[in-house]
Amino acid sequence: MEDSVNKIAVIGGGSWATAIVKILSDNLKEKEIFWWMRDEASVRHICKYQHNPNYLSSVEIKVKPENISTNVKDVISKADMVLLNVPAAFLKEALKDITADDLRGKKIISAIKGIVPDENQIIGEFMHSQFQIPLEDIVVISGPCHAEEVALEKLSYLTIACQDMNLACRFAQLINTRYIKTNSSDDIYGTEYGAVLKNIYAVASGICHGVGFGDNFQAVLISNAIREMSRFVDAIHPINRDIKESAYLGDLLVTSYSQFSRNRTFGNMIGKGYTVKSAQLEMNMIAEGYYAVNCIHQINKIHKVNMPIARAVYAVLYDKHAPNIEMKLLADELS
Amino acid sequence: MEDSVNKIAVIGGGSWATAIVKILSDNLKEKEIFWWMRDEASVRHICKYQHNPNYLSSVEIKVKPENISTNVKDVISKADMVLLNVPAAFLKEALKDITADDLRGKKIISAIKGIVPDENQIIGEFMHSQFQIPLEDIVVISGPCHAEEVALEKLSYLTIACQDMNLACRFAQLINTRYIKTNSSDDIYGTEYGAVLKNIYAVASGICHGVGFGDNFQAVLISNAIREMSRFVDAIHPINRDIKESAYLGDLLVTSYSQFSRNRTFGNMIGKGYTVKSAQLEMNMIAEGYYAVNCIHQINKIHKVNMPIARAVYAVLYDKHAPNIEMKLLADELS
Repeated sequence: MEDSVNKIAVIGGGSWATAIVKILSDNLKEKEIFWWMRDEASVRHICKYQHNPNYLSSVEIKVKPENISTNVKDVISKADMVLLNVPAAFLKEALKDITADDLRGKKIISAIKGIVPDENQIIGEFMHSQFQIPLEDIVVISGPCHAEEVALEKLSYLTIACQDMNLACRFAQLINTRYIKTNSSDDIYGTEYGAVLKNIYAVASGICHGVGFGDNFQAVLISNAIREMSRFVDAIHPINRDIKESAYLGDLLVTSYSQFSRNRTFGNMIGKGYTVKSAQLEMNMIAEGYYAVNCIHQINKIHKVNMPIARAVYAVLYDKHAPNIEMKLLADELS
Repeated sequence: MEDSVNKIAVIGGGSWATAIVKILSDNLKEKEIFWWMRDEASVRHICKYQHNPNYLSSVEIKVKPENISTNVKDVISKADMVLLNVPAAFLKEALKDITADDLRGKKIISAIKGIVPDENQIIGEFMHSQFQIPLEDIVVISGPCHAEEVALEKLSYLTIACQDMNLACRFAQLINTRYIKTNSSDDIYGTEYGAVLKNIYAVASGICHGVGFGDNFQAVLISNAIREMSRFVDAIHPINRDIKESAYLGDLLVTSYSQFSRNRTFGNMIGKGYTVKSAQLEMNMIAEGYYAVNCIHQINKIHKVNMPIARAVYAVLYDKHAPNIEMKLLADELS
């Protein structure tokens, strides 16, 4: 790979962004990574102590202090690849000063798992329509991968999706490390929508746990969820894909079953009777599934895919239906 | 259903047999259930106290004391349906005094998840070849269902497979209860082999946990396992099936992820360095996956399906390969 494409700007300061910075640091020189985050105090802390004060604080940050900034335009201008890693709900805000010109010729990598609210677009679509990024210049990174386990250097597999398979492979090389293996894929739509839906199913999984269902039911829920995901992504973007691959099923499993999953934790609190607001306050983290289920609800008004699980989660979170009753009704629709 | 087919003999005294007896008791009269178990002391205890002393002891047993016996021939003679529920490795021993005549005209229901050692046959095949039971008289019950959660009356789904769909539906009616929902299927081979394989994958899952892999890897392992299961059952019995259904994927999930899974616990101990013998002694329960992986290894000598996970588990358990090295080699074959 020529030298010029190795300058990467990471946009976002959360746990997954911190994990990605760690992975990139193991392959790139410290001067090749640029990092934007919103919070000035965090930037100062990282520059002084080489640790993110709020997320994955055990990870030593090996980015040059002068490359870390709260000025997004400046950070993007220095890089050839822009890796987006803020919650989907905050993407517009993060890029509000950025124009199509600022991004011209740059590759866009999305590590966001969500849908841009109001637009109801996945990140690739949004970047394509708002900033005229060619679809073949858009790369999607997907799990199964909890940031917390990257910090611990536990072996993890990431899927790199891009319609330009050469670019997918080139980016995969940048993040292949001792503890990260990569798969390549040309399915950016399925990978993004799969990553979005799995957060909804993790919320469902948490709700079911919260209202008292056991492991037997959980297994039925998830085996129905992967079929629901398959129906939806095949309706949105019908190509030949195996939904049992790690990027789809694996990502669903890690999010629905892991103790690290904030979507599952959020759902669990809802199932136990917390309001959405109090669960969000208590967690102090965004559960993407909360926003995602509304977006999918809107998008599915057009496609009309049979999605009993997403429908039930929507009913609980937005129509304030009682979780125990809604989950019992859902149970009758599962097999 | 006519009165004559409601007399059921349950063969086996373990936790899953106890759970099945509980479920049946909620639909049948106490005089319609007959129960055989090997252990005389357990029979006496149950007759006196209405609780199984060794398994699911919280469950109240509602079977008439005179219907519980250690005489298998006697118990079978009184019933129209014989529900087999001993570990596969002990099936031959349990039926050693039984002839084809004793079973003539009776429906056979297998709740066993395993392969008969030496014969390397699934239960349906074994009963068909040894006792001339017509294949359409053989019913298979499969999960996802931990017995422990049946005891707690947690909502669970069972799949009832039979080549005669009428019989499948008739038996399903017998076990449909407030806390048990049923699916019917005509795929007895896929259901049995799926139930066998999932125990192997749960052992693999436990080994990986034991040697220190995290949730991210676990998700990749299971998403590879369901693809491996799909390849194998499609090679053995190629019919149109969706491996993402609860009987296959759901059963794999509950066994691989649940704290109740003894196969996972067994694998975990192996991963942490216990020998097979010491793990078995410590657990005081049979991990079916230990026997299953040998049987599948033998069967697959003919079919030669690519099964890296089953191969790795076999290498650890039977060839005494070091778990950490074997799992690292396996990791290179997963995607």
